[in-house]
Amino acid sequence: MIIVMKPQAERQNVENVVKLVEDNGLKVHLSQGAEVTIIGVIGDKTVLMDKNIELMKDVDKIIPVTESYKLASLKFHPEPTRVKVGKYEIGPDTLTVMAGPCAVENEDQLLEVAREVKKDGAQILRGGAFKPRTSPYAFQGLGEEGLKYLKEAQEETGLATITEVTNEQALAMAVKYVDMVQIGARNMQNFQLLKEVGKSGVPVMLKRGLSATIDEWLNAAEYILSEGNPNVVLCERGIRTFETATRNTLDLSAVCVIKAKSHLPVIVDPSHATGVWSYVAPLTRAAVACGADGIMVEVHNCPEKALSDGPQSLKFDSFASLMKDLEGYKKLAGRA
Amino acid sequence: MIIVMKPQAERQNVENVVKLVEDNGLKVHLSQGAEVTIIGVIGDKTVLMDKNIELMKDVDKIIPVTESYKLASLKFHPEPTRVKVGKYEIGPDTLTVMAGPCAVENEDQLLEVAREVKKDGAQILRGGAFKPRTSPYAFQGLGEEGLKYLKEAQEETGLATITEVTNEQALAMAVKYVDMVQIGARNMQNFQLLKEVGKSGVPVMLKRGLSATIDEWLNAAEYILSEGNPNVVLCERGIRTFETATRNTLDLSAVCVIKAKSHLPVIVDPSHATGVWSYVAPLTRAAVACGADGIMVEVHNCPEKALSDGPQSLKFDSFASLMKDLEGYKKLAGRA
Amino acid sequence: MIIVMKPQAERQNVENVVKLVEDNGLKVHLSQGAEVTIIGVIGDKTVLMDKNIELMKDVDKIIPVTESYKLASLKFHPEPTRVKVGKYEIGPDTLTVMAGPCAVENEDQLLEVAREVKKDGAQILRGGAFKPRTSPYAFQGLGEEGLKYLKEAQEETGLATITEVTNEQALAMAVKYVDMVQIGARNMQNFQLLKEVGKSGVPVMLKRGLSATIDEWLNAAEYILSEGNPNVVLCERGIRTFETATRNTLDLSAVCVIKAKSHLPVIVDPSHATGVWSYVAPLTRAAVACGADGIMVEVHNCPEKALSDGPQSLKFDSFASLMKDLEGYKKLAGRA
Amino acid sequence: MIIVMKPQAERQNVENVVKLVEDNGLKVHLSQGAEVTIIGVIGDKTVLMDKNIELMKDVDKIIPVTESYKLASLKFHPEPTRVKVGKYEIGPDTLTVMAGPCAVENEDQLLEVAREVKKDGAQILRGGAFKPRTSPYAFQGLGEEGLKYLKEAQEETGLATITEVTNEQALAMAVKYVDMVQIGARNMQNFQLLKEVGKSGVPVMLKRGLSATIDEWLNAAEYILSEGNPNVVLCERGIRTFETATRNTLDLSAVCVIKAKSHLPVIVDPSHATGVWSYVAPLTRAAVACGADGIMVEVHNCPEKALSDGPQSLKFDSFASLMKDLEGYKKLAGRA
Repeated sequence: MIIVMKPQAERQNVENVVKLVEDNGLKVHLSQGAEVTIIGVIGDKTVLMDKNIELMKDVDKIIPVTESYKLASLKFHPEPTRVKVGKYEIGPDTLTVMAGPCAVENEDQLLEVAREVKKDGAQILRGGAFKPRTSPYAFQGLGEEGLKYLKEAQEETGLATITEVTNEQALAMAVKYVDMVQIGARNMQNFQLLKEVGKSGVPVMLKRGLSATIDEWLNAAEYILSEGNPNVVLCERGIRTFETATRNTLDLSAVCVIKAKSHLPVIVDPSHATGVWSYVAPLTRAAVACGADGIMVEVHNCPEKALSDGPQSLKFDSFASLMKDLEGYKKLAGRA
Repeated sequence: MIIVMKPQAERQNVENVVKLVEDNGLKVHLSQGAEVTIIGVIGDKTVLMDKNIELMKDVDKIIPVTESYKLASLKFHPEPTRVKVGKYEIGPDTLTVMAGPCAVENEDQLLEVAREVKKDGAQILRGGAFKPRTSPYAFQGLGEEGLKYLKEAQEETGLATITEVTNEQALAMAVKYVDMVQIGARNMQNFQLLKEVGKSGVPVMLKRGLSATIDEWLNAAEYILSEGNPNVVLCERGIRTFETATRNTLDLSAVCVIKAKSHLPVIVDPSHATGVWSYVAPLTRAAVACGADGIMVEVHNCPEKALSDGPQSLKFDSFASLMKDLEGYKKLAGRA
Repeated sequence: MIIVMKPQAERQNVENVVKLVEDNGLKVHLSQGAEVTIIGVIGDKTVLMDKNIELMKDVDKIIPVTESYKLASLKFHPEPTRVKVGKYEIGPDTLTVMAGPCAVENEDQLLEVAREVKKDGAQILRGGAFKPRTSPYAFQGLGEEGLKYLKEAQEETGLATITEVTNEQALAMAVKYVDMVQIGARNMQNFQLLKEVGKSGVPVMLKRGLSATIDEWLNAAEYILSEGNPNVVLCERGIRTFETATRNTLDLSAVCVIKAKSHLPVIVDPSHATGVWSYVAPLTRAAVACGADGIMVEVHNCPEKALSDGPQSLKFDSFASLMKDLEGYKKLAGRA
Repeated sequence: MIIVMKPQAERQNVENVVKLVEDNGLKVHLSQGAEVTIIGVIGDKTVLMDKNIELMKDVDKIIPVTESYKLASLKFHPEPTRVKVGKYEIGPDTLTVMAGPCAVENEDQLLEVAREVKKDGAQILRGGAFKPRTSPYAFQGLGEEGLKYLKEAQEETGLATITEVTNEQALAMAVKYVDMVQIGARNMQNFQLLKEVGKSGVPVMLKRGLSATIDEWLNAAEYILSEGNPNVVLCERGIRTFETATRNTLDLSAVCVIKAKSHLPVIVDPSHATGVWSYVAPLTRAAVACGADGIMVEVHNCPEKALSDGPQSLKFDSFASLMKDLEGYKKLAGRA
């Protein structure tokens, strides 16, 4: 941490800052520049959190030098993390395909989709039982009934399963039926929920918030990790920008940044990012090409009749063809 | 709702769309243009929600003509709403000042601040008992103990009180102690929480999400209203943009847009929007000048020692001087 | 400037960086932290520009401590700048009102508007002769003919005049007819044009780019100032964000930031920012309330027939009423 | 174009709108809905441009149904465009690699880089002679001298060449030396320059503006096309968002959108988008995987000594290795 003093800061005010830092058991390095004085702080800066040094007289600004997350950082955990989900492993050697409908609508629909995506080579079946919807008048999900169908599909097909949880009750219910839970974009900073997932130990996929920086996203992961749950997978699903041609803007460079800063696996979801089914296949290929550890795509037996997000869902034939396409890209990426 | 067909759409495909609309009890108006055919849909479009007309053959796009919220809309409720909070009223004739520390830290701190803001003319005391923080290592709030201090401050000073609730347990606890609850920016689309607040009937201030459009914000209000709670106040607190000179970008034009689209009162919070105490006073004046029904500002007895958001808090003398400044602006705005 | 080394940087690599800095005539302060080594650089850092220290071995990142602009900075010019435009002065004691049509359309229109805005109390007449338009099929301006009408209006009414210049030819032509030129948002980083305006010495209003940070904006001003032209006025006109309810998002906090960082006057243009005439009056009041040195608003004798940006133009009666409203706000702001 | 009237619009006001439309030679289709009346306009809507129908009484809003560009649209030109640059062709069957230093610094540097990228398989040599720089104190380019070195490199290696032009003088000079010119992000809406490039007929690569929507980008292309120059190639180079981990956010979904809306080729530049050399290779692979017609990457003989944008430049070995990697991706994409 670096404390930058204002030009012409008074000597006494510089000394006050130095004293505060030293009184908290840290060391300082003072640089008297031509224009400004800079105070470098050495030691565990968390003890200075909530000290509001910015408000001390003649302090211009505080510049953090190291990240605020530790457990999620590659610096302190240089080996890539592998997360077991059912019998599958998400990590550097595999390309995990999560596929299924946006929402679980009924038993037949889910089983039909499950059989198809299994046949085409997916490992994990997705399906929402609790749906956060912008309008209160839209379909909100089947709840526990949906979870039961997921369990049934898992038992019949051998696929692992994932579902979104939107609060603690949903979490408590979901862990009884599925192999992995998802924290959605809107809940990325629902810190109470993050802590509960952390305590549960269940494998979790943490989606990036619509307007979350990568730094905030890794801090959100830190909430889960710091409660003792190492089974965290990140998921890039588009950020909010000024562009309206796609629902959100898929930020594939985030995959590269995560790989440079963290050991956690990262998945890409082009279906929610774009909102347009015909953009899903090319962007899925791109995700694999730039290093994603897996992809999540929406597949529906009949998108025209889907109760949620039909326009972004692939039909069976498009999904099968995408899976065939991916073979070449997996080989180039050195993944099985 | 308008359905735009692709250029050279086949006649049969146009007819299929028309049939679907009519089968759902709605009427259509067909416009055969030089380039494209347009199908206007007349009647209650909610019956077409989840029909995924975008996916029908030769359909180019769907253009909504009316908003998806009804109860929050000025069109269906042309009179401005007035919300009673304790003995005060938030609405078109008043300028409500909510002030207090970001977090309740201890009894002495809260009471000292409460006495000061009361003396200077505030109506509502703010103070966080449940703090959502980006890093898991930062101060997270006193919980129920904090609520008790708020109750105590209310009883001593006569101020009404407001506190943020971050989940259903916090809500259930908070309503026993405070006059108004706040849904924070990070929870603006925590739909389960919105519904619970809707059922509770408690006066609520709904902060705009960091990356929420005004349309989504009003849809979030609709969640509360549609459960039967009319006591909703909106709060603009800055949106996320590329600019980093301020923490977020305060969107004062949102006040104008809300006034044009909704009957709900709207409050402005320049403290969280900017993150810099010296920008709070000028932007508070601006908020009043453009029509806000109230303001929320952070005030602390000793910002240097605040456990949360000290840099954006006003000291007592700055707050007192701001309140004096506001007198002239209130008069110009025709508010008491 | 601070150079942060990677954790476990090799001693030799740290020494290489130190050597490079010292070889360029600068001094270093070395801080050996628990995790990282930090190298503070003291002296005129511009000599290190283009040295690409980021690429030296074991360097993690470079953190700038001071701004890259000097002439525009309040630190080196603590007195507010006053810019003379014709017989008027833009600065801390006045509230300058620039008003007029988006585009000069014909002689009658311009003169009619000029007489009206003069009567209502404006100081500067705006009118575009060179119009940058998104679509090549839209009206592009009258060119020199428009400039002649501006000159005529100036002579008849005594108003000063301002017009946008979009390239060097337009600039050379405009300075013969008007008192002040404007660099539009789209040209904020047209550096060749900035330099030419710098050489010309003509009073200039520099609009903020749609996606320009305040720092980039001040660097653009620096281009003009560094060519010897001190007559620079800034103009906030909205930035591009995800919100679509207004054309752009007016960033009034930018006024506060500019006042904290620079000595240059700042004007606010709510007409272009919102694109909606009914939001112009409240946001104009807000601009004055938060410290703007002036405002620019579009006024048209007949917005329904305007060839450009009619929907955001005020009619005569709305403008007259806004000017009356502003009286109270000017008094509160201590401006004449 | 659809005109939406306000709820309870007066009959006379609806008729006035209808009359205006019909008086301009267009036909209307009237839809009387339960809540609102909608007026569909049939015919060439450009005659209504600048009519400001939004301002007529009881008009709520105007909704465009078709795009404002024609020549750039896939609807009116369903075959993909092929652009010849020197002896190479940019289009659907090839993968064009543009490589070279950000700025031409001297003869040796440019020739050394040219020989290397030629050897590795690039087709086009890039190098800036006119550099737009945020700070006036940074290196601004060699001007005509740089163009001469480009010509020399072209003659020696057989590579085609591209350079950025920042104004009309630069354009006039550049066409004498290079095979293709580039309009940079900052000049995407420098309409005068677009028109001049349109008149020149020279092959041009039009970079997307930092905050330009895809629609605005295609309108900018329309400026060039409408002057009779069909040789337009688009280039995605990142947009400005709130994320700061990369310099800009590379929007690869823009490639998919362009392919769905336009016949123009599209190139991706990951060097400028990210600003970090280590992210360039994975994002280049991703660009090819999602359908880009080519890529532009910065390569420097000695990035540590580059006068501009060193941190994002690849060294020779990284570039050679990327080119080898791309072989597999080109094959999968069906490009030579």
